[in-house]
This record gives sequence, structure tokens and C-alpha cells, in this order.
Amino acid sequence: MLYAKNNEDFKQRRLRAIRNDFDSGATQLARNALADLADYAEDCDAANIEALNKEILDLALALQQCRPSVATLATLIQAFIEKIQTLSSELTLNETRQAYGDIAEEVSQAAILAGRQAAQNLASKINKGSRLITHSCSANVMYLCDFLGEQLKEVIITESRPSMEGRTLARYLSKIEMPVQYITEAQIGNFIQQADLAVTGANTLLQDGSLINKSGTRLLALAARDAGIPFYVCAESFKHRPLMPEAITLEEMPAEELGLPQLAHVRARNLYFDLTPARLVTAWADEQGVTQTFINKSS
Amino acid sequence: MLYAKNNEDFKQRRLRAIRNDFDSGATQLARNALADLADYAEDCDAANIEALNKEILDLALALQQCRPSVATLATLIQAFIEKIQTLSSELTLNETRQAYGDIAEEVSQAAILAGRQAAQNLASKINKGSRLITHSCSANVMYLCDFLGEQLKEVIITESRPSMEGRTLARYLSKIEMPVQYITEAQIGNFIQQADLAVTGANTLLQDGSLINKSGTRLLALAARDAGIPFYVCAESFKHRPLMPEAITLEEMPAEELGLPQLAHVRARNLYFDLTPARLVTAWADEQGVTQTFINKSS
Repeated sequence: MLYAKNNEDFKQRRLRAIRNDFDSGATQLARNALADLADYAEDCDAANIEALNKEILDLALALQQCRPSVATLATLIQAFIEKIQTLSSELTLNETRQAYGDIAEEVSQAAILAGRQAAQNLASKINKGSRLITHSCSANVMYLCDFLGEQLKEVIITESRPSMEGRTLARYLSKIEMPVQYITEAQIGNFIQQADLAVTGANTLLQDGSLINKSGTRLLALAARDAGIPFYVCAESFKHRPLMPEAITLEEMPAEELGLPQLAHVRARNLYFDLTPARLVTAWADEQGVTQTFINKSS
Repeated sequence: MLYAKNNEDFKQRRLRAIRNDFDSGATQLARNALADLADYAEDCDAANIEALNKEILDLALALQQCRPSVATLATLIQAFIEKIQTLSSELTLNETRQAYGDIAEEVSQAAILAGRQAAQNLASKINKGSRLITHSCSANVMYLCDFLGEQLKEVIITESRPSMEGRTLARYLSKIEMPVQYITEAQIGNFIQQADLAVTGANTLLQDGSLINKSGTRLLALAARDAGIPFYVCAESFKHRPLMPEAITLEEMPAEELGLPQLAHVRARNLYFDLTPARLVTAWADEQGVTQTFINKSS
């Protein structure tokens, strides 16, 4: 009973951490979950392989479901689940623990590589001397900026209130010596006219190519269209999800983050994500290329 | 010399206050300046009417020029200057001081009444049960909401970072018991779809009907157009200015307001106003009516 309690404690603690992590991007969140699975495979109390399998599947399924709007989490854990089914049945318990950890790491690495490949594919479409505007803080956009380096003239970034991940991006771009203008979301309409292209990552890409990403993305896409510049989404196919926009409920975070004092009749709203319709996306870059017609690769 | 120094002190203090006031809307700012002129007319050191005239004109012209992007300030002070020229030359010094104060008050009242009339004119176009979305905190929009009262189903308002005047609007609407949803600018793309119409006030309306207003207004107008709902500007004709967009330089405020730590290569930008082209405005409401073709009434 003590062992079972320890297992349960670990699982609840990690699920809580993933559920409450709104600072990490989607891929980072999924990688954290995979690292949790590797840790759990190594350390959890299990008398035999069957018990280990049960524990791991139990945690994997719970992680898959704990953030319904983060497609990457579900997709990468699904890849992990499918891969662990193919393991040889001749491994010892300890070898199985080790193999599970290796698979988690392999899936995690594949996600990183796919994101980088998507960024490299998009890079080939970007003219030297371009000014890029982005919103929120995407690992793919970070990699894209690093990859393009001095080929980019400047990057215009938003602070991304209320979670302020724009500050993380500002620190990163400063470190790689990229010239940056840092603006409030409200100023997108001012600065879009200086930009040659807009790029964001994706939280999720839906069946029809619609984009779920940090709130404000839809406004950036509208401003880009109005300014006559392309709006690109740079997202590995792990982020595809076979759902239509109507099926999506966007996560809402605590209203307290907006710092509005309690007022009768006033309801502060704090949706972290918005939906950008496919018609506002110029092209989608993924690990296989850049396409102007969206092809959903989710199973 | 002592007297002249006191006059100068007062003028410099008031000019500084107007120059640094980014909380008041354009009309309130102009009314504050008119109140300053009334105070100065009453109290300044002047041995005779000629000296008083010189003092008042000197302050009026300095106030007119101290906030180039606030048309209302220039226009209302111009109205004040023109009216004081028409005063009878038979008044005593004290009567003249009093008359100047009265004229300042009269111009100030006329501005309020024109704004209210513009709101009433717009109100006649708004269907019962509508949801209105606005950005920033316009005195005209406040009056419009109060005037419509229960005829409005709800008002969706933005916090308007960094100056957060959305909080002032939230407090006002709460007091008049209006149901409100309060959002970040980034969520305009989420909430536009709930709204039946978008309305803002104006800082300035240019020769071609383009709107200068708090940054984020252009995004609201774009979102409204994309969502197929009207975008109205509600602004008395005092806010017209006979200039084309190309002639405008938008004021920039201290970047420190964005709270970004100093970072090499990163420049934080803080433009308070943006320009919404006339093509995104459905109709302009002023004290004479609501028109779908903009008629600039500035002299």
C-alpha cells in the first residue's frame, strides 16, 4: 500500500505541474511530460513488467487528457504509447524501465528535430534583409531567427500579456544579437507596416488548417492581410489535430491575472488562445515543406 | 520682476501638467487647459487689460502647441482665442478677467454638449439588445452607454495597456450597472464575434476621415470588418483636423512603461496612438448626425 501511495503521489504531482504550466510552449510541455514518463518508468514501484506497463499507461493516458487544447501533448504521448507496444517481451524488468526512458527521449528528440526542420523549410522562403513580426514565444520561431541570423534585418515581437512570454523571446533574441523592437499587442497595427512577413508557431492546427495559438494571433493575421504581407505558421505535424473549429473549446485562465479589482457587473475574461481561420494563413511550414494548401497529417 | 516670475511659474507648471497628462481623454485634456486659462485670467499679474491680453494669449498659444497630436486641444483653445477678440473694449480689467473665465467655461461646455449630441445621434442607429465592443476609454462612449442603458445587452471593453484606462471605464460602467466583459487587447479577436457593433471615440479625425486614437483601435476596426459588424467613430467636430495621414507623427511615450528590463539589441516601443484608415470606418457620428462619408469640419 505504501508503494501504491508513492506512485499515486508522483503521478498527481506531475499531472498538476503539467496542468498548471502556462509558461511553456506546447512542445516544451509535451517534452516535460515525456521526461515525466521516463522518470516514472525508472522509479515507480512495480513488482513486474505487467505492473510497470499498467503504471506507465495509466500515467500516459492521464497526461494525454490533462490539457485538451494542447495537441502536441496528446500526439507525442500517443507516439510514445505506440512505440512501447513494439518492445521485445524478452526484456527484464530493469531493461524495460530503461527502454521506456529511451523511447520517451527518442520521441522528444524527434519533436525537436521536426520543429527545427519546419523552421528551416520556412527559412528558404524568407528574403535576405526581411523584417519579421511575431506574437507570443514559439520555439520554432526562436530557432528560425537563430537559423536566419544576420539574414534578418530585425524582429518585431509582442510582450504577450498577461503571461508576458514576449520577455522570454526578447531575452533569447538579445542573446543571439538580433535587432528587436518590442511592442504591446495594441501596437501591432502600428508596426505591421514595417514588417515584411508575419510568422507564428502553433499550439494546434485543426483539420481545416485553422490555427489555435496565443490570443492576439488572429489580430496579427488580420493586420498582416490588411498590410499585404504574408502570414506564415511554422509548426511540425505533431501539432495537427483531426478536429474542426466548432469542436474546440478554448482554455480560460484565472481572471485575476488581469489585475482588475472586483467590480459588480464586470467580468474579466482571460482566454489564452484564439482561433485564426485558415483563410488568413498564407502558408503552413512543417517538417516536410511549406504548403499553401493545408494537409492535415494527424492520424 | 517678482510678479512676472509668478506668472511664468504658473504657466510652466500648467504646461507641464498638460504635456504629461496621458490619462485624460482629448476632450478632458482640452477642458483642463480651458480651466487653466480661466484660472490664469482671474489670478495672473497684469497691470492693465493690454498686459492681461498678452498673458492670456501667450498661455493659450503655448497650450495649443504643447500636444500636437491632440486636435481637440488646439481647436477648443482656438475657439477661446477667437471669442475673446470679440469682447467689448469698454470692460474694466476685473470685468475682462471675469469675461475670459466665462468664455473658457462656455467653450468647455459646448465641447461636452457636442460630444453628448454625437453620442445621442449614434444611439439612434443602435438596435435594442446589442452588444457593443470598444477600446480605450472615451467620454463619448461612456455617455453613449449611459444614454442607452438597458437597451444595451452588454459592453465588451479592453484594459488598454499600458495606461490601463480600461479600468476607469470598467468602474464607470459598473457604477451605471452595465453588464461588462473586460478583456486584454489580445482577446479582441476572441470577443469580436460576440459583438454587434464596435464604437470608439477619437483623439483626432484627419482630413480624409482617418482616425487617430489609442493604439489597438486599428486592430479593433480590422477585427470588426472581418467579423462583418460596423465600426463607428463617435466624435464631435472639434476633433477634426485639416491634415492628411502623411503629415502626422504619432506621440511616443517612455518605453519604461512596458516594464521590460534593459536588453542589448532590444528596443521597447510605446506609441500611444495608431491610425485607422477611413476605409475601415463604417460611419462617423458627430453633433450634427451620423454620416457614411466623412465631412471634415475643421476650419
